Amino acid sequence: MNAVKALFFDVFGTLVDWRSSIAREAQALLEPHGVALDWPAFADAWRGEYQGAMEEVRAGRIAFCKLDVLHRRNLELTLKRFGIAALGEDDKRNLNLAWHRLDAWPDVAAGLARLKRKFLLAPVSNGNISLMVDLARRNNFPWDAILGAEIAGDYKPKPKVYLASAAAFDLAPDACMMVAAHSHDLAAASALGLRTAHVARPNEHGPGRGELAPSVAADFAVQSLDELAEKLGA
Amino acid sequence: MNAVKALFFDVFGTLVDWRSSIAREAQALLEPHGVALDWPAFADAWRGEYQGAMEEVRAGRIAFCKLDVLHRRNLELTLKRFGIAALGEDDKRNLNLAWHRLDAWPDVAAGLARLKRKFLLAPVSNGNISLMVDLARRNNFPWDAILGAEIAGDYKPKPKVYLASAAAFDLAPDACMMVAAHSHDLAAASALGLRTAHVARPNEHGPGRGELAPSVAADFAVQSLDELAEKLGA
Repeated sequence: MNAVKALFFDVFGTLVDWRSSIAREAQALLEPHGVALDWPAFADAWRGEYQGAMEEVRAGRIAFCKLDVLHRRNLELTLKRFGIAALGEDDKRNLNLAWHRLDAWPDVAAGLARLKRKFLLAPVSNGNISLMVDLARRNNFPWDAILGAEIAGDYKPKPKVYLASAAAFDLAPDACMMVAAHSHDLAAASALGLRTAHVARPNEHGPGRGELAPSVAADFAVQSLDELAEKLGA
Repeated sequence: MNAVKALFFDVFGTLVDWRSSIAREAQALLEPHGVALDWPAFADAWRGEYQGAMEEVRAGRIAFCKLDVLHRRNLELTLKRFGIAALGEDDKRNLNLAWHRLDAWPDVAAGLARLKRKFLLAPVSNGNISLMVDLARRNNFPWDAILGAEIAGDYKPKPKVYLASAAAFDLAPDACMMVAAHSHDLAAASALGLRTAHVARPNEHGPGRGELAPSVAADFAVQSLDELAEKLGA
């Protein structure tokens, strides 16, 4: 077994609190248009279209496009579902970029800084490069490179995304560790030979609604990136 | 005209002194094998195969492969030319990775840190992602993302490399500025609408053998990244 050289991070849910951030951004942009609704429910509905949209790409029914493009399509569906017709193009474009303005969970910046002393670090997310760059600038994520869906031209959990990311670093899969708050992501990575670490994000889908522990075998299961750094000797 | 949002950097020659570094690395690895030769001449010869190897890809005669692979092919040619037959596979692999251990010109780390306060920064180099990551770690290059040849699947000065890099940041070409010590790189970028800055590296090919000034029109011509930061108000 190779020593682990690189840590790959899922981002939405694992590093950033998409639900609170999207709720906040939607409220800030829609309330001035007289819209009143359950903002976390709006965030959940928008995010609820996520897997279905990516499945169109994964199944080959549409060509690969950036997640920003899928988010925009999903925004249109969500606005329609909530009966919101007042938004012009500029506002829609701005609201769609809410995904570039997500806030990290409190442990992330310090944990990544500590892990960087020992490992190469990259997001292996379904988010596009520009989205990852904006989140990194906002939250001080010290990436060595932006890997993941856009460099692979497909979406997780397709094997190509994990394998293209390992190949970009010239590493065998078992020299890479996937870090995620989602068991399905870890299961896909593990099947390809990557090492895995689960980070509990118990509030991802609202208070008490997140994975407390992995439902699949994982090399590590931790409550924070600081705990992961401790366990990895970083 | 868009305001410039991102700076794209050529790396070999513009940010790092490949000639001195390769000469040093070759000497360190080959002298213990009893090899004595003009080490800068060895560096020049190895680098001399660079454009021809990439042209095979650019012309479509071979599929895109990482620059590490081309460097290895060029190393074999160079060893043969210098009559060096003593090297085993591990030593050849290690010597090929000399390109991952190049030192930056003295102004670069501080200049990039200053420029990062105002601009997105990325290498748009023909070097592969892992090579760029190793140079960044060694020399404190604070990249937002690693763009360039490997994400485009072709080599500069093919238009795709510049355009794919701008697209990765969701930017129009004229919101990006190519920074290079080589007029041919700036000419290709400029033809696509990118802004350009020339940095003089008078010693790239040995003392006094480098471009002192651009031979094509450039938006800026400077002697250091600090001077570029000054001119760009960063």
